[in-house]
Amino acid sequence: MKKVLIANRGEIAVRIIRACKEMDIETVAVYSEADKEALHVELADEAYCIGPKLSKDSYLNFSNIMSVAKLTNCDGIHPGYGFLAENASFAELCEACDIMFIGPTADAISRMGTKDVARETMRKAGVPVVPGSTGIVASEEDGLRIADEIGFPVIIKATAGGGGKGIRVARTREEFVTGLKMTQKEAAAAFGNPGVYIEKFIEDFRHIEIQVLADSHGNAIHLGERDCSIQRRMQKLVEEAPSPALSPELRAEMGDAAVKAALAVNYRGAGTVEFIFDAVNQKFYFMEMNTRIQVEHPVTEMITGIDLIQQQLKVASGETLAYKQEDVTFKGWSIECRINAENPAKNFMPSAGKVEMYLPPGGMGVRIDSAMYSGYTIPPYYDSMVAKLITFADTREEAVAKMKRALNEFVIEGVFTTIPFHSKLMDHEVFKSGDFNTKFLEKYDVLGS
Amino acid sequence: MKKVLIANRGEIAVRIIRACKEMDIETVAVYSEADKEALHVELADEAYCIGPKLSKDSYLNFSNIMSVAKLTNCDGIHPGYGFLAENASFAELCEACDIMFIGPTADAISRMGTKDVARETMRKAGVPVVPGSTGIVASEEDGLRIADEIGFPVIIKATAGGGGKGIRVARTREEFVTGLKMTQKEAAAAFGNPGVYIEKFIEDFRHIEIQVLADSHGNAIHLGERDCSIQRRMQKLVEEAPSPALSPELRAEMGDAAVKAALAVNYRGAGTVEFIFDAVNQKFYFMEMNTRIQVEHPVTEMITGIDLIQQQLKVASGETLAYKQEDVTFKGWSIECRINAENPAKNFMPSAGKVEMYLPPGGMGVRIDSAMYSGYTIPPYYDSMVAKLITFADTREEAVAKMKRALNEFVIEGVFTTIPFHSKLMDHEVFKSGDFNTKFLEKYDVLGS
Repeated sequence: MKKVLIANRGEIAVRIIRACKEMDIETVAVYSEADKEALHVELADEAYCIGPKLSKDSYLNFSNIMSVAKLTNCDGIHPGYGFLAENASFAELCEACDIMFIGPTADAISRMGTKDVARETMRKAGVPVVPGSTGIVASEEDGLRIADEIGFPVIIKATAGGGGKGIRVARTREEFVTGLKMTQKEAAAAFGNPGVYIEKFIEDFRHIEIQVLADSHGNAIHLGERDCSIQRRMQKLVEEAPSPALSPELRAEMGDAAVKAALAVNYRGAGTVEFIFDAVNQKFYFMEMNTRIQVEHPVTEMITGIDLIQQQLKVASGETLAYKQEDVTFKGWSIECRINAENPAKNFMPSAGKVEMYLPPGGMGVRIDSAMYSGYTIPPYYDSMVAKLITFADTREEAVAKMKRALNEFVIEGVFTTIPFHSKLMDHEVFKSGDFNTKFLEKYDVLGS
Repeated sequence: MKKVLIANRGEIAVRIIRACKEMDIETVAVYSEADKEALHVELADEAYCIGPKLSKDSYLNFSNIMSVAKLTNCDGIHPGYGFLAENASFAELCEACDIMFIGPTADAISRMGTKDVARETMRKAGVPVVPGSTGIVASEEDGLRIADEIGFPVIIKATAGGGGKGIRVARTREEFVTGLKMTQKEAAAAFGNPGVYIEKFIEDFRHIEIQVLADSHGNAIHLGERDCSIQRRMQKLVEEAPSPALSPELRAEMGDAAVKAALAVNYRGAGTVEFIFDAVNQKFYFMEMNTRIQVEHPVTEMITGIDLIQQQLKVASGETLAYKQEDVTFKGWSIECRINAENPAKNFMPSAGKVEMYLPPGGMGVRIDSAMYSGYTIPPYYDSMVAKLITFADTREEAVAKMKRALNEFVIEGVFTTIPFHSKLMDHEVFKSGDFNTKFLEKYDVLGS
């Protein structure tokens, strides 16, 4: 791998460029017309405009991106997360154009992207899944029969859905009948596929996910878990590694399950197997697999010392995994806060605009992944996440104290950000206790506390 | 320890404030009239002006600093490095005023600050010293006799000297006679003490120092070595840990020697025992002990995971050391580049002025300790070091690659800095090989290469 095109923007594009530079790989950035002044454009060896501001015309524009890759003689394309990262057609196009898609094969993406197929694949591989339907619900009667069998409440999910869309909870037979129809209709409209499946609805759970890493020679390992239970409307806001809730035994069991999941689809590269963790019953169930690098990958890097983007690049070059499972050791505690350009006091309303002053915190155990600078204008067309603040220390308590210190010295003037929210959160007794689940933000008014 | 005054400025003041905040200790900053807009003033809980721009009127002003400490009810004063850090009289004043000087006792400072006394103390404690005189040279005849005995070349050193001042090499008896007189005269003028001692001059050596940590209960440990051989006119420019030159056996031997040195003066807090390391003969000799936190302490923090400033604060509170020698483990490699506001192309001429744009590098394994921001004006009255860039990775090769990447993305506009020098250095084959000594920068024209 000598030259890589980064088909993304923002902090993840910068993150990938950094990894490439450290490995002496040339970098090609692409950008929309709204991103001419972006940091990834400045940092890459070369940069090309690929279209107008809207993602569909630029960062999702297959042919423009592929043309740049071909014209600049890239060996590989790194999709980052979002945009084309889990687009099997794009992965296929790369394959057809003889350019390495830095991610899994199109087949693995498809099999994990179709939720009921993924569920069945996992069940067959011996990975625990939530009790539910085997494949798509054939009819209302079929659905009702399964719902009765597993017991209410149940959750109805579009097989082509994702990111919290195409999902509905039913607590009674009546709700089920209405919900089924509505979800099917919505799914047909939104994803072009009306298929839905059903699962037992677990009310209180932690979101715990396992990072996996696999090469193209059949080797797969896991790098421990991340706890992403602090969510607002199914969007993660804070992630940490390890999880305050897992015993060493459960960690090993979940790790094994995640490796099984990866092997079941001949996975290649970095991926994440997300689990629902029922802390009361100490049981975990497969939720879905994200076939890409994730926003929250740094917390795993901090406690393992393994650079996941560099590993992706190595595996994509055909190298055998440099680590065996027993080489992976965990040290310390890491927390990540997603700093979004949003106003937490106004229902997290997006706040694009000019960053008059930018000064990230520094010092021991503080890591910043961002593409901001003093004078940068945040365009309103893309994701509102503008920085990731990651801390690392020996213990959770120290990592929280460090996060609070770092948040309080972080200067971003000119736009609203979620920094005040995170700062309050670090002082919240329940958060500090480590004993919470995904309903934490529904239950507690962090800003008001 | 509930409230601490930081008797310093710049990055080290910010560093100390950060540690205090993480430990929930209140902070009081002091500043000169030239430092009203300084970051440490902004970050501390309280801040007080202690005098005009010149250090002697502000940062060295005992009574003003002590008045602020008393008026604000501080329990301790952290002197940082430079300024009052190795001033035994100030440490005594603190003791008299019942405020904890966060550093060793006045006695330990004095015994290590008087070079011939330190040398004798070390010799008696069984720490290897360079062959030379026992105490002050009494006369020219006495000096010549010793010089003949140990063999030329010899080095003549003022006992009250330090920081590369009051030092002269003599290669012949004639040079010795002239050199002795000149050094005595200079020492009398500069330090008010004409006393000199002599040592065998070791031409080619590496500067290797050992970090020690001791509590007030008689416990002392070492935290491994730092290699500071990249120096210009005896000023360190780049430091790393571990040293590329030490075997595990020598590391253990030097560590033991450093602990002996600390115990010999009932040391308390963080200190550094500097050694001359003769790589050809694999021998090391005591050079001096710095009775304070050092600029380059972060590289040790990175490979041990131990926060040295926090440890200083804990020890100063009377706590017993939290680590035993066997608890200290080393992982990975760390390098620090001192970013000075100097023009390396013009003989490192200082370059104060307004920083129009400041954007530090980020990402995995990159640490920044600095007090700069976009729009900050660097005053010309103090040290020219304005940032420390520290990288951390598994291996030296990776830490160097990361440093190069980080240097190249570091934006400091408006003043000249040593960034281009460091960037070239990271590409230098001899530097990359790890096989160099303190003459490296005399021997190689890094910028011209």
